[in-house]
Amino acid sequence: MATGDSKGWEDGIVARARDIVAAWEEPKAAPPAELTAEQLAGMIDHTLLKPEATSEMVATLCDEARAHRFASVCVNPTHVAQCAAALQGSGVLVCAVAGFPLGATIADVKAYEARRAIENGAREVDMVINVGALKAGRLAQVRDDIAGVADVCHARDAVCKVIIEAVLLTDQEKVEACLVAVDAGADFVKTSTGFASGGATLHDVALMRTTVGARTGVKAAGGIRNYEAAVAMVAAGANRIGASAGIAIVREATLARG
Amino acid sequence: MATGDSKGWEDGIVARARDIVAAWEEPKAAPPAELTAEQLAGMIDHTLLKPEATSEMVATLCDEARAHRFASVCVNPTHVAQCAAALQGSGVLVCAVAGFPLGATIADVKAYEARRAIENGAREVDMVINVGALKAGRLAQVRDDIAGVADVCHARDAVCKVIIEAVLLTDQEKVEACLVAVDAGADFVKTSTGFASGGATLHDVALMRTTVGARTGVKAAGGIRNYEAAVAMVAAGANRIGASAGIAIVREATLARG
Repeated sequence: MATGDSKGWEDGIVARARDIVAAWEEPKAAPPAELTAEQLAGMIDHTLLKPEATSEMVATLCDEARAHRFASVCVNPTHVAQCAAALQGSGVLVCAVAGFPLGATIADVKAYEARRAIENGAREVDMVINVGALKAGRLAQVRDDIAGVADVCHARDAVCKVIIEAVLLTDQEKVEACLVAVDAGADFVKTSTGFASGGATLHDVALMRTTVGARTGVKAAGGIRNYEAAVAMVAAGANRIGASAGIAIVREATLARG
Repeated sequence: MATGDSKGWEDGIVARARDIVAAWEEPKAAPPAELTAEQLAGMIDHTLLKPEATSEMVATLCDEARAHRFASVCVNPTHVAQCAAALQGSGVLVCAVAGFPLGATIADVKAYEARRAIENGAREVDMVINVGALKAGRLAQVRDDIAGVADVCHARDAVCKVIIEAVLLTDQEKVEACLVAVDAGADFVKTSTGFASGGATLHDVALMRTTVGARTGVKAAGGIRNYEAAVAMVAAGANRIGASAGIAIVREATLARG
């Protein structure tokens, strides 16, 4: 339950979200972002989150990330130490997920999982919000849940991305989630886990960018399978792309742009 | 990596699994188990694991579980304390999931999550194995991962169920997973999370029961939506059923059996 102070803060978030949604106009499709293959690669979190992923598959992921100079490899916590060893000196970061993909564990477990991932070599942590608490209007709980992970990250010079799982939310809830995430110290908001019924949409990326402004990152993830989709997401406001199809995306970028 | 001793133990598990699979014959469909509605209700974990579940929905789940005398409510960790309070004195247990649904976090995070769930009132913990480690043949890692949770449970008089996510496994791997789980102290093996591409099958339940014998439980979960499916699972060897359709199942049981 929110305390008196939290109640005022929660009401403020709800009101700000309402204003943003009311003022929101679906943007015309922006022209696709003009990016070289190298620029695009540097925005991609090369992702392997399937539960059945083996250490062999993870080794291949790291080789690919090194060769293509992706921003990071995005993996489950069990693979973080292996990736950190494989990518040492490459400039490719290790990104670990936390509370993933349901976001329905308790705050201190998420914070502990994030801390252990960082200790094992992660430099970025993609955590999932408590969706049920958001839907129940318990915004202070959502904030504290995020802040627990963000504080762990920032104390260790790691980046905290906050997955809102947009497909489960109304526009009002998406905006509330983004405002709460920024308040709690998120470095990025991220559309999707890739494990729900839908992934990133241009609508959601644009709405999230409008909400968080220029100083917080927006990561589009889930279902981005080719160059065309990736540059459209960037044009809509994304500055990071989560994809398991990173190799195909940069190959197509090379063909399209050289 | 397995140590020398682990290697011998791992080879033994693989060989035993190979023998069990070789000797395995698909059983003829057993006649459906004859169970009263009350008996069946006492075998059901009344389940709500959707990430968007709110405290209101969880309150309803607990009311239903109390009214129908289900074995437990099975929920995400964020809802455990609420359920424990709501079900005090009812005889209905609280079952929490851990490392759910991917099973791909590190062992000490799973153990920590289990401990915190028990501290919050859970009496049963359904944990997911490290599927990728199993597929890579790292059976000692799979064992230690399970044992970490099982030890936490047993030190606190809680039950440990081990989800093997059968749809991702070959028969050989299913049997290996069950043998490892029993070795690690599992009280139950469980077919599925309900979040993968398939749930419980009669084939898997029978194979798992053959593998673990009479002293370890078998929980069938995932896609069990009616009475007919539930009693078929029991006939195949299940002694616990995980379902979100528990109410429909016991209603149909009352119609069928009184």
